[in-house]
Amino acid sequence: MEFWFTEEHSDDVRFSMRIKRHLFSRQTPYQQIDIFESVEFGKVLILDDSVVITEKDEFIYHEMMVHVAMAAHPAITNVLVVGGSNGGVVRELIKYPNLIRIDVVEADEELFRACRLHFPKLTKSLDDPRVNIRVSDGMKYVRKHNGVYDLILIDSTDPFGPNEPLFTREFYGNCFTALNADGILVTQQESPFYPKTAEAMVKAVARMRQLFPIVRVYQAHIPSYPSGLWLFSFASKTIHPFHDLEIRAWEALKLSTRYYNGDIHHGCFALPNTIKEDLLNETQR
Amino acid sequence: MEFWFTEEHSDDVRFSMRIKRHLFSRQTPYQQIDIFESVEFGKVLILDDSVVITEKDEFIYHEMMVHVAMAAHPAITNVLVVGGSNGGVVRELIKYPNLIRIDVVEADEELFRACRLHFPKLTKSLDDPRVNIRVSDGMKYVRKHNGVYDLILIDSTDPFGPNEPLFTREFYGNCFTALNADGILVTQQESPFYPKTAEAMVKAVARMRQLFPIVRVYQAHIPSYPSGLWLFSFASKTIHPFHDLEIRAWEALKLSTRYYNGDIHHGCFALPNTIKEDLLNETQR
Repeated sequence: MEFWFTEEHSDDVRFSMRIKRHLFSRQTPYQQIDIFESVEFGKVLILDDSVVITEKDEFIYHEMMVHVAMAAHPAITNVLVVGGSNGGVVRELIKYPNLIRIDVVEADEELFRACRLHFPKLTKSLDDPRVNIRVSDGMKYVRKHNGVYDLILIDSTDPFGPNEPLFTREFYGNCFTALNADGILVTQQESPFYPKTAEAMVKAVARMRQLFPIVRVYQAHIPSYPSGLWLFSFASKTIHPFHDLEIRAWEALKLSTRYYNGDIHHGCFALPNTIKEDLLNETQR
Repeated sequence: MEFWFTEEHSDDVRFSMRIKRHLFSRQTPYQQIDIFESVEFGKVLILDDSVVITEKDEFIYHEMMVHVAMAAHPAITNVLVVGGSNGGVVRELIKYPNLIRIDVVEADEELFRACRLHFPKLTKSLDDPRVNIRVSDGMKYVRKHNGVYDLILIDSTDPFGPNEPLFTREFYGNCFTALNADGILVTQQESPFYPKTAEAMVKAVARMRQLFPIVRVYQAHIPSYPSGLWLFSFASKTIHPFHDLEIRAWEALKLSTRYYNGDIHHGCFALPNTIKEDLLNETQR
């Protein structure tokens, strides 16, 4: 018997992985959760039919969500993670001894439970004493806080489902207020290759540029995601993502990473002309 | 009716694109050639069941094959392209007014003809008066030349089919001899994500390191290729790919590119730790 999971990257492009077992399937009030064990990618978390993480390449996404901002701003002590219920972002954060507080806010309690059961290597990071979990709507949570975070990480799914509010000007404005005077907002911004997500990305970045003095887009290669090219945005009140970088200080921490390093930190901000032009056109509109 | 082309990226991963029409299909003495018209990627050239170029993203591959070396070594005048029958590499080369001679060597005359028929926008570059086409075996052709080229570009398919000889120590040695004292060899080196091609890449790079004083690996995102991450190698007798770069001189040429730029030139050499370690382990073996 052949057993395959197929994701539609566009109406006309499909990506399929051979599956050993379907481990979990549940419709929650927020989304459809599925967990498969695949041959090539190990265990795979799927939300609403899209790959969210695979054991084989999740390290790329999680390292790039965390270390770019942490290296650029070594004084970070208080972090908010919106989403992040699988623990991958927090696993990278707890590598930093100087972090004092990591708040993780995720609305879907069933997703927490499913990840605890099937991704224990990732979710054990959530047991770190500095981590505080809030089962709550990220939008509402951020609105109630003022000047308390050095870093907010938005570890969301795509901007077309339940996480659409996390890509709005209102939400980014609330994040700006929840950050302190040197605060940084990092969000995942989908693939720039397929038109639907590319348009959402340039609009989201333009919204941030109305609020934050410094907004830069950076990239990573994530093979299990559509097109293999993934974007993140770095929005900051005062700290520049690479002009202010002292990579020697980060290297002195001797953190173990499999993707991120000092070369990648600079290299990831080098965008192809096509993406630069898309961003420029939207900003000038 | 649904009509899809599916490429097996590994035994357990498949990438499929919706097809409008099958335009061409022929088994030649060298390979199986197919040309499809796809919905998402435009026309697609397939050799032995693997995507070689698509109209939508071929610019990434071709720009990155050519401009990294051309920017690093502005005195290049004589270039050899092994493969390159679709004209994409030559389209990028003829943008340089100071190039005097571009020799294109490809064994499969049927492939030339098929590309002429179905990719005329690409192959029209082959009509440039500086271009000399040789229908010949690349391996044999290179062996007969000594110290005549500033740059050799190996625009081959993967190292497991008819192009396997183009990844051997013998061939790299012949390229070394065919290059002049400041010569550069650029080759495509497949994806580092799937084990089979990753092993071939580290072995090929180790072979080059036995011959060339400077060997560096660089990357590009090519969505229609396996994993979306693609590697190239830059092997050189004297010129360093980025320490010797004078990007202002390249920018002064005002060439139109859609992917390559000065930031990308530096950023493309920033490799993830996993790839760095694979390369280091092979070199130390």
